[in-house]
Amino acid sequence: MALIVQKFGGTSVGSVERIQQVAEKVKKFRERGDDVVVVVSAMSGETNRLIDLAKQISGDQPVARELDVMVSTGEQVTIALLAMALIKCGVPAVSYTGAQVRILTDSAFNKARILHIDEQNIRADLNAGKVVVVAGFQGVDEQGNITTLGRGGSDTTGVALAAALKADECQIYTDVDGVYTTDPRVVPQARRLEKITFEEMLEMASLGSKVLQIRSVEFAGKYNVPLRVLHSFQEGPGTLITLDEEESMEQPIISGIAFNRDEAKLTIRGVPDTPGVAFKILGPISAANIEVDMIVQNVSHDNTTDFTFTVHRNDYQNALAVLENTAREIGAREVSGDTKITKVSIVGVGMRSHAGVASRMFEALAKESINIQMISTSEIKVSVVIEEKYLELAVRALHTAFELDASARQGA
Amino acid sequence: MALIVQKFGGTSVGSVERIQQVAEKVKKFRERGDDVVVVVSAMSGETNRLIDLAKQISGDQPVARELDVMVSTGEQVTIALLAMALIKCGVPAVSYTGAQVRILTDSAFNKARILHIDEQNIRADLNAGKVVVVAGFQGVDEQGNITTLGRGGSDTTGVALAAALKADECQIYTDVDGVYTTDPRVVPQARRLEKITFEEMLEMASLGSKVLQIRSVEFAGKYNVPLRVLHSFQEGPGTLITLDEEESMEQPIISGIAFNRDEAKLTIRGVPDTPGVAFKILGPISAANIEVDMIVQNVSHDNTTDFTFTVHRNDYQNALAVLENTAREIGAREVSGDTKITKVSIVGVGMRSHAGVASRMFEALAKESINIQMISTSEIKVSVVIEEKYLELAVRALHTAFELDASARQGA
Repeated sequence: MALIVQKFGGTSVGSVERIQQVAEKVKKFRERGDDVVVVVSAMSGETNRLIDLAKQISGDQPVARELDVMVSTGEQVTIALLAMALIKCGVPAVSYTGAQVRILTDSAFNKARILHIDEQNIRADLNAGKVVVVAGFQGVDEQGNITTLGRGGSDTTGVALAAALKADECQIYTDVDGVYTTDPRVVPQARRLEKITFEEMLEMASLGSKVLQIRSVEFAGKYNVPLRVLHSFQEGPGTLITLDEEESMEQPIISGIAFNRDEAKLTIRGVPDTPGVAFKILGPISAANIEVDMIVQNVSHDNTTDFTFTVHRNDYQNALAVLENTAREIGAREVSGDTKITKVSIVGVGMRSHAGVASRMFEALAKESINIQMISTSEIKVSVVIEEKYLELAVRALHTAFELDASARQGA
Repeated sequence: MALIVQKFGGTSVGSVERIQQVAEKVKKFRERGDDVVVVVSAMSGETNRLIDLAKQISGDQPVARELDVMVSTGEQVTIALLAMALIKCGVPAVSYTGAQVRILTDSAFNKARILHIDEQNIRADLNAGKVVVVAGFQGVDEQGNITTLGRGGSDTTGVALAAALKADECQIYTDVDGVYTTDPRVVPQARRLEKITFEEMLEMASLGSKVLQIRSVEFAGKYNVPLRVLHSFQEGPGTLITLDEEESMEQPIISGIAFNRDEAKLTIRGVPDTPGVAFKILGPISAANIEVDMIVQNVSHDNTTDFTFTVHRNDYQNALAVLENTAREIGAREVSGDTKITKVSIVGVGMRSHAGVASRMFEALAKESINIQMISTSEIKVSVVIEEKYLELAVRALHTAFELDASARQGA
């Protein structure tokens, strides 16, 4: 008998029929003896409907506090419907809004952060044999104002509840049956992973494998909540995301290949190499609210240096204008940029203890005559920027080179 | 400068445009220097949409607690939209759900009663120059469960808030411009009343002039909250409902003529006249959950008596079956009934101090050769049951006989 938190997103509860299917799924866990807390999102389309209503009145910037009052009704409807569906199929159930649980957040409307969760009431209902259905994505601040965690925040609610309740597992139900070694649309031989670490998942998620919300993975890692990604309406074990507890066992070096098509590259050349130059270049970019991803600065040459970074493609034109201005101010020689690039990364905790992972990556790319424009590394990741047209070729080559194509690997 | 509570129903907030119109109206009161608390219902159609969703899952008897969680979202959307609309047109505003105000109710889901209202937060916001927008129809019980007051309960919320805040007036905005001497569709000469007492309004409302919810009028009378019925989108003074404070002034004898087409009459004849016979007859009716309106028992004759009462027409067949059963048990001679009847009442606090009001009524009906089947009287009302086909004739005759046709009366 385990305590399980299950989270179902908007598509999984998008109709009366689907809500009934979710109730049947929850019932199976109850019948097996588990205690279950279910976190749900608004029915798909509902949040957008509400935001549209608000915009009809307030224009593009609805009053943040009131928007949360409104948008939070989406989940409130779902929790009531799911509780009804559970009761209808013979499972005692009770619903909770974020405020009723008391999911205490800060007062940053539309993007609040969870500060604390009172878990006593939920525990009492679990002990009384009930399934507890909680509205995701919402909370309440110290003054009693309704807050929302921002879009996709229901994952975070699930993980935070699992942490507060010390649940055995937090199950995130989605429209995929797990986390894959890479995007199966690019590499048909991509495989579902049985297990992946929080760190790897973070690298995979932030690189474009958008199965889970990044914040929820960070949260799960921080509080060591085992997270499982599963398909809402298909049977299967999904992918378990946990701490890297089995360091002594044989580990695969690389868990997956991630990629991101949404970046653009900017270079400023012939920058006088003085202390503080990086700040002079990136300060104005940051002040313009543009997020920077990769940053590469090479060794200087003739007391000048070249500086390259990537931004989201939507920010490219803005970033270019800011950078040209900076170039004039600091006396740099030239500014250039390229939107036809892509970032490809290999991710795996195994590379910590294996030398030569990066060179194996470069070798695989060289074999395909793919030129590497930028390189950036972290403890468990190596990313390269290449020309966009080579994306599929590069990902497939790396998938093979790191032996991810083979039948399900052992010990992972 | 006054403190005013304004209540707008579902039709008045039925679209974005109407919500904007309501905001403009509220703004006028603010500009005149009034403090304003606005109570709103769900946008028209929304409550039914939510109930339909619930029924798709739960059938005809949705789980009461969860239904309230769901249905209460209707008003929650409206408060946010109206607060946004107010802010958009330059009026500082803040929204409150029932739970956020803390409108404390008992735990009778779907039909809860208000126990207490915390008014401190609202008062602080009013003092800070804000318009406070409160969700009608909903509250929260001692355990933090969301409750609803039952349909139409937004009027009650308005009155209860006005009482708690000791407001100068509670304005109920509707689709009529006030309370009339009788239904203008029946009597074109019907006039809007400037003023009416709580007691009169209660008699008028319960008799079919469905402008206000009965409970809200009772509440207003109990706490002496001046109530004003106004048209949402037309200018005009409406009708003020207050205590009968001007007893010494010249009073009209009759304030209005009410009627009810929804009743049916049942008679049991030749009932052995023994103590407890009324209970023997009405006990089983009540046990069958049938509400009885008028009851008439005449003096006995040969130790038997006749007993007549009225019920809602929808309950007529059930009541007849119950009564036939009772007749066999107690040895009554005969049971009969009639659905083609109507009840017509004259209502007015003035009749307390005027003799002969009833006879003037009977005289007016006799002049038109209308036969009276039943008579029932209270301190401020005389009701008669007549054949349905005479309804319009009777109401017009009484409207004239009691001088209600004349131009606006004085001193009222």
